[in-house]
Amino acid sequence: MVDIKVSGSVEEVMHQAKKAFDVYKKKSGKEKADFLGRIADSIESQRAGLVPVAMEESHLPEARLQGELSRTTNQLRLFAELLREGSWVEASIDRGMPERKPLPRPDIRKMLQPVGPVVVFGASNFPFAFSTAGGDSASVLASGSTLVVKGHPAHPKTSRMMYEAMHKAVVESGLPQYTIQHVSDASFLVGQQLVEHPLTAGVGFTGSYKGGRALIDYAANRKCPIPVFAEMGSVNPVVLYPEMLSLKSAEIAQQYAGSITAGMGQFCTNPGLILGIKGDGLTVFMDKLGVAIKTVQPMPMLHEGIHDSYVESLNAILEKKQVTVIARSETLPNGMEGHPTVVSVSAGSFLENEYLQHEVFGPYSIVVVCDDKEALKQVLSNLEGQLTSTIVGTENDMVAFQDVVDLQIALAGRILVNDVPTGVEVCNSMVHGGPYPATADGRFTSVGTTSIKRWVRPVCYQGFPQQFLPEELKDGNPLQIWRCVDNTWSK
Amino acid sequence: MVDIKVSGSVEEVMHQAKKAFDVYKKKSGKEKADFLGRIADSIESQRAGLVPVAMEESHLPEARLQGELSRTTNQLRLFAELLREGSWVEASIDRGMPERKPLPRPDIRKMLQPVGPVVVFGASNFPFAFSTAGGDSASVLASGSTLVVKGHPAHPKTSRMMYEAMHKAVVESGLPQYTIQHVSDASFLVGQQLVEHPLTAGVGFTGSYKGGRALIDYAANRKCPIPVFAEMGSVNPVVLYPEMLSLKSAEIAQQYAGSITAGMGQFCTNPGLILGIKGDGLTVFMDKLGVAIKTVQPMPMLHEGIHDSYVESLNAILEKKQVTVIARSETLPNGMEGHPTVVSVSAGSFLENEYLQHEVFGPYSIVVVCDDKEALKQVLSNLEGQLTSTIVGTENDMVAFQDVVDLQIALAGRILVNDVPTGVEVCNSMVHGGPYPATADGRFTSVGTTSIKRWVRPVCYQGFPQQFLPEELKDGNPLQIWRCVDNTWSK
Repeated sequence: MVDIKVSGSVEEVMHQAKKAFDVYKKKSGKEKADFLGRIADSIESQRAGLVPVAMEESHLPEARLQGELSRTTNQLRLFAELLREGSWVEASIDRGMPERKPLPRPDIRKMLQPVGPVVVFGASNFPFAFSTAGGDSASVLASGSTLVVKGHPAHPKTSRMMYEAMHKAVVESGLPQYTIQHVSDASFLVGQQLVEHPLTAGVGFTGSYKGGRALIDYAANRKCPIPVFAEMGSVNPVVLYPEMLSLKSAEIAQQYAGSITAGMGQFCTNPGLILGIKGDGLTVFMDKLGVAIKTVQPMPMLHEGIHDSYVESLNAILEKKQVTVIARSETLPNGMEGHPTVVSVSAGSFLENEYLQHEVFGPYSIVVVCDDKEALKQVLSNLEGQLTSTIVGTENDMVAFQDVVDLQIALAGRILVNDVPTGVEVCNSMVHGGPYPATADGRFTSVGTTSIKRWVRPVCYQGFPQQFLPEELKDGNPLQIWRCVDNTWSK
Repeated sequence: MVDIKVSGSVEEVMHQAKKAFDVYKKKSGKEKADFLGRIADSIESQRAGLVPVAMEESHLPEARLQGELSRTTNQLRLFAELLREGSWVEASIDRGMPERKPLPRPDIRKMLQPVGPVVVFGASNFPFAFSTAGGDSASVLASGSTLVVKGHPAHPKTSRMMYEAMHKAVVESGLPQYTIQHVSDASFLVGQQLVEHPLTAGVGFTGSYKGGRALIDYAANRKCPIPVFAEMGSVNPVVLYPEMLSLKSAEIAQQYAGSITAGMGQFCTNPGLILGIKGDGLTVFMDKLGVAIKTVQPMPMLHEGIHDSYVESLNAILEKKQVTVIARSETLPNGMEGHPTVVSVSAGSFLENEYLQHEVFGPYSIVVVCDDKEALKQVLSNLEGQLTSTIVGTENDMVAFQDVVDLQIALAGRILVNDVPTGVEVCNSMVHGGPYPATADGRFTSVGTTSIKRWVRPVCYQGFPQQFLPEELKDGNPLQIWRCVDNTWSK
């Protein structure tokens, strides 16, 4: 049994990560795919132990955690498939033209290569799927970068067990011992030092705006700035359009009561802001939403910090006279339970009071009642960047309100029609990202296979003899991947 | 004749850019391609007027500027082709699976979309190809973003004429008047205000480290940080390996004398640092390099600031006792002419004196003489990120020095074998980028078609009715572009 390193000085950790990187980066796609598959297998083999520990630490119900563990191993296997298929490296070849006039064209080829050790901060709201072995970690290892995880202090045992399962796969794969490292020190300072260390090449984070912006600023102020992909939450605006409201307001209210309170609202994609134009449809929607919310049972929140912050934010909102309570759960919460609550406000008051525009992490949503389309547009124009933006409307609505739809599209990374934003499919076409401050850089996503693009850079090989080129760029396409050769895609 | 706006308040300029963006972003690939083609035609029609003005302002010779103008219009046409072909948007479709258990899969599609108005700072060393209508501008307009160019104060007339040629194409294409704007105010403050304006969504810059880092910091300190792609120069290390030196040192010296002094060394890819292991081969190389440099005629540099900075940096180096002059041009420079100079230093002194490691923009290079392979590795390990890194070696050298080759690959965006780094081919596979401080973000390139990726973000459409999807994502693939549909690429 090797010595499993759980914590060490930042200096030591990052030097080990760099040394391991110099070996790991040279592994083939197939070797990395086998490794990711072994991590998935190793985690699955610990399922019976992992789920009860995560339940104890996160207060999430068993069914949710069973599902989340499956998502976690599925993510790892999805990246393994991506690596086996191999075309993700964006191989491109422009063959030399020695006879070209006035100057010959050299042989120029390029592909994506890993950037170097990446530090991932585990998230508290997905103790499996966005923490130690979650999406960020899977994409880092798939890219060929080595991984340093700072475990989330809200689930230290889960994080440690998950790391041990991952480390088992490191050993079985014959990879450098420090391909994956786990830092369990809970202090903020250690996080800062990891981001500021000269050998750190990138950072992944999912959490609060305050925490994310701090990491972004540390990274930006380095002598050599590095990219931080921070996903910092969102209010995920939903616009209810008039014709759809006139047809289905009760049904939509029922659907949204579920989305607002699922997992006690502790999702980045929780619909925390609902917009509509004043009228009977919206009135019926609010009534029905209230009826449904009253019956939702409070459940414990993830940890005390999140619970206290929810109560505090909510109380600050509820004491404002401009805000009307639509409904709260009729079952009073105990201890760390969240209290499902929906409120309403006029567009004018919403615009005047900036704190109403911020995310309240928990089972809460605010309905903004707009006098007319212009007020609706004004509210949308004033919103910051979002992860998602949802259109609840008929095709007639989308034609009649094309300018509003355009504003919704400009606002977010994912735009939904007649659906709820909670529930993020892990697939190629997913974008879990969006303009700042939803994320640090809206040009990337943290869910789906393209999340690997955060940790790679293009490297161009000019005039290389065949034997020194990576397999992906050799003549004859030995890996049989999609490549762009002289402007034409082929396999 | 419309009113051609050349300067205005930053507030006004950015609001106009945003308003124009809301129209321009909806243009089809074909419409944008026609527009870029018209810009190229309009510039070509002004060739006879543009070249003499640029000669007067930049002191570059006619042949170079004729070639550079062709490169400029070729770049525009290359992007037009990219848009006509259309696959660059990375369209991806995961079709809905309404029957999937336990949960149905929604229909999810994504493609790249423009981010919003981009500010481009013209570069002084390429008054055509990297200034007002240069590569940054072409990639911005191709992406669907609107363009605000801050003209470089070293060639105000050229910049203004170029803008007028571009504006003619705006009018002919029936596009919003402010699709392209030109700010001719030379003050540093206006540049800062453009970067800091809330409506600016991205920044392109080519120039000095000092200027680039200032813009990066302004952008990072915004309430909403934005990406800056700053290309800040490089010393472009060249390693001369022993076997190759023993075979061809005289020939290589001749080739490098040309590369070091081409265009008076005023290229980002100028080979400013040459490394080799002590021995007869390296001695012969230095001798022959000296012989060649002595005969190079001084020519005027781009502008007084660049000339003065070259003289100052060079004098600071020449007065150090650790530095040996290999040779200088035997023709003494007049006025603003640069004085071609090559020097040598030991690896130890190079490592001890950080100022020797910085770029000296002009016809200059420093040869670092290493005692052995370990010293060579130490020098390479201490270098900052670079645009290029060149291997001058035989296949035997590359096998024997595999660890040195690996260090060279990790260092830069483009790695060359037996070539000179000057001369940047504009093609799909080019990477003109590299780890910081060569550029602000090594994940992108500023030359070649993929430079368009700097100004776009993925947007995901979930559950959209067909008629509201962009053409690129509709069923039946009306644009006949390459798309990834349910994990399979097809056209």
